[in-house]
Amino acid sequence: MAKFEKKELKKKSGNFSDWYTDVILKSEMADYAPVKGCMVIRPYGYAIWENIQAYMDRLIKEKGVDNAYFPLLIPEKFLNLEKEHVEGFSPHLAVVTIAGGEKLSEKLIVRPTSETVMYQMYKEWFHSWRDLPVLINQWNNIIRWEKRTYLFLRTSEFLWQEGHCAHATHSESNDFILWALEMYAKTYRDLLGMHGITGIKSETEKFAGADKTYSVELLMPDGKALQGGTSHDLGQNFAKALDWTVLDKEGKKLNPWQNSWGFSTRSIGGLVMVNGDDNGLSLPPNVAPYQAVILPISAEDKSLDIYVQKLKDQLLKSGVRVAVDNDTNSSVGRRFNFWEVKGVPARLEIGKREMENKKVTIARRDNFEKETVDIDQITAHLQIILKEMQEQALARHRKFTQDNTHMTDDYSQFKKIMSEKRGFIRSLWCESKECEAKIKAETKATTRVLPLDAPEEKGKCIYCQKEAFHRWYFAQAY
Amino acid sequence: MAKFEKKELKKKSGNFSDWYTDVILKSEMADYAPVKGCMVIRPYGYAIWENIQAYMDRLIKEKGVDNAYFPLLIPEKFLNLEKEHVEGFSPHLAVVTIAGGEKLSEKLIVRPTSETVMYQMYKEWFHSWRDLPVLINQWNNIIRWEKRTYLFLRTSEFLWQEGHCAHATHSESNDFILWALEMYAKTYRDLLGMHGITGIKSETEKFAGADKTYSVELLMPDGKALQGGTSHDLGQNFAKALDWTVLDKEGKKLNPWQNSWGFSTRSIGGLVMVNGDDNGLSLPPNVAPYQAVILPISAEDKSLDIYVQKLKDQLLKSGVRVAVDNDTNSSVGRRFNFWEVKGVPARLEIGKREMENKKVTIARRDNFEKETVDIDQITAHLQIILKEMQEQALARHRKFTQDNTHMTDDYSQFKKIMSEKRGFIRSLWCESKECEAKIKAETKATTRVLPLDAPEEKGKCIYCQKEAFHRWYFAQAY
Repeated sequence: MAKFEKKELKKKSGNFSDWYTDVILKSEMADYAPVKGCMVIRPYGYAIWENIQAYMDRLIKEKGVDNAYFPLLIPEKFLNLEKEHVEGFSPHLAVVTIAGGEKLSEKLIVRPTSETVMYQMYKEWFHSWRDLPVLINQWNNIIRWEKRTYLFLRTSEFLWQEGHCAHATHSESNDFILWALEMYAKTYRDLLGMHGITGIKSETEKFAGADKTYSVELLMPDGKALQGGTSHDLGQNFAKALDWTVLDKEGKKLNPWQNSWGFSTRSIGGLVMVNGDDNGLSLPPNVAPYQAVILPISAEDKSLDIYVQKLKDQLLKSGVRVAVDNDTNSSVGRRFNFWEVKGVPARLEIGKREMENKKVTIARRDNFEKETVDIDQITAHLQIILKEMQEQALARHRKFTQDNTHMTDDYSQFKKIMSEKRGFIRSLWCESKECEAKIKAETKATTRVLPLDAPEEKGKCIYCQKEAFHRWYFAQAY
Repeated sequence: MAKFEKKELKKKSGNFSDWYTDVILKSEMADYAPVKGCMVIRPYGYAIWENIQAYMDRLIKEKGVDNAYFPLLIPEKFLNLEKEHVEGFSPHLAVVTIAGGEKLSEKLIVRPTSETVMYQMYKEWFHSWRDLPVLINQWNNIIRWEKRTYLFLRTSEFLWQEGHCAHATHSESNDFILWALEMYAKTYRDLLGMHGITGIKSETEKFAGADKTYSVELLMPDGKALQGGTSHDLGQNFAKALDWTVLDKEGKKLNPWQNSWGFSTRSIGGLVMVNGDDNGLSLPPNVAPYQAVILPISAEDKSLDIYVQKLKDQLLKSGVRVAVDNDTNSSVGRRFNFWEVKGVPARLEIGKREMENKKVTIARRDNFEKETVDIDQITAHLQIILKEMQEQALARHRKFTQDNTHMTDDYSQFKKIMSEKRGFIRSLWCESKECEAKIKAETKATTRVLPLDAPEEKGKCIYCQKEAFHRWYFAQAY
């Protein structure tokens, strides 16, 4: 591969947004697609998505939720069934009007989410309390039209999972909603090395068709917040709109209580923003496509090849995802640069000297520390380092989030923070849409979440000074 | 779940096509979607697809092919680039004309296959012989418009994998084409318990845009053939049409040699047809969502519950996929019936008597044989039985295929076979399109494949009596 051509990477410490796009393109994670608003996820980016899928799919199945596949195309009339739902989505729809060479008598919507088509089937399939709970998830592609692409973060097509459960009681549904929310927070924490704030969204910010929406919010290095996954309490809204009833134990009709929850390739955008520096990406080991790369430093040498192959096999056997870079024709500097841009956590350098002394030099991507280790101890040592890097990534992001979370009850202070450094602001708010809209218009900050364990306080709304009981998280959102 | 209501299944020995649809609906593998031509893959059917994906994905990655994701929507002009390609696909396209509330200035095609959009990106990304080979696969959804749905076998939307590789030489590309073909045959053989015939397709039957198409063909119980996976030699057709060149080692421009290969959810249709009987499905253990189901036979009993749970844990630990049916309120007959329709290979019955004697009764789904085994030996014994069932499924289908493969050089005999019992017919053919078309019009039989190892013969075409050198497989196709 012609991978070692010189690629000048933009600086993260310069224009953050330019760096973000540049590092995604140069690490070959993704690229712009020919259709406006769409993107291509290249193998290096897709391997990250596969790691996320494998991790979450196991948690989803352990909870008893089964995967299925529902159709891409939804009859237009289905979307119209739930009033808020259709109003929320109609500006973003892609519409098929011609199929099989003919103009369709009814337009078909490319799914922006699958509530309507799935619940129509639930209604056909499930008629008794014995059929509940319904626990179904799907991994698929979604279209919500966007005019301008921002790789991973804002694209007309994205990949996600959408879970759709139905229960006999609201309390049972609620347990599932909170389980999904915690699963998302756990995925960020343990896999992506990111610290999220979980909580409930305001009425304005909730999902179109839901009674309540919960989300995990992550603070990005530029002080803006990313909504990283949502879990919705749909109440009985869809069941009522579709007239779906099941017979309960007493033979009475019941509208099932429903929830839906989704996590998308947007999360990869957050991962990139948080885990990188002027040299490129710096991936937490648990989600990295390759956790280590072996670089033979000397020119071609048969005994070195054997040494490298043996090391590779040993690492693979112990479960480390490892690549070998055999392109000894390129300069060492270019090779280092290439793997640094890609953010591979550990670089294992082996030259003639290392081989003769039965050693390997390990260089960490996160802090550039180097040490030389006995080949016998490399596997155990590498595993310790990888674990440490994973923990430190999370600790760094947690500290960053804490350092950039401000608490204020003074609106001029609020405005000053938003205009200077941004970040999360925790402020009392009266929960009126008017104040929320005015704060947004004046500062760009929107309500992000109210944490589930937020205590009741007695104070005054940051904006209108009327009574307020809860301290919400505000931030400018992606 | 209300799973044990009486469900009268249509007989396979009656109308085969009615049985096929009925067993898919009643085993809850799939259902018709609200949009004509589309289907829903329910959890039980999707678990089969997940098993196929896991099996093939490992083989694909071992070969060095990476997964990626390319966009669903393709600009109309892309499809027009390759003449045969667009002519082959245009009658089956779904077209997006409205997006984001506006009429689009250029229509977007919902991908019927991804050659054009992928190779446009290859052209942007890869410029040197060092970039070759390009080895990329994707798992995604495809739309090819159909008016009438035949569950799994003919649907407007289906799921598949599509591999798209590019090489410096035709011979290297050819190796990949044949590797993919053999991978598909192996998946049928070792996972799905089915015997396929592999070979090259005729000019008429090849993929639109390919120089050559190879496929694996499987004989169904009604004597029709199912095309079960295809691998295409695209030559330099797309590279030339798109003007994609890379510089070779001497610095000269080269159009890369390309191949594409696909395997879809259609295969599940073949699996159902071959592996079932009047009682429902009978799944080969390697692909079955559950390989065994444990049925406590007595009414509720705490010690029995513990016994069942222990057995379940033991089986899960040894890697057996196992379900427990605790619905002791329903009649035993209905419960047996339910799991038979679903085709679970082994039923483990435990009553009070079995528990007291530390025994389990195993009933095989394929031949209904029952035996009672010591609980200590159940894991080892079950694994032997499952292995045997898998091998016997393949042996049965191989024998069926052989018994229904006819060889004739007499056209009246050919017509008689096609009008009476169908099956594969091996006949000499002059390889002219005219004879092929006339045979099809008169008998419904099309050429399926010429096996790769078919010896050259010297004889006369079954239709026109002119010189013919090869004995092709003919059959009526699904």
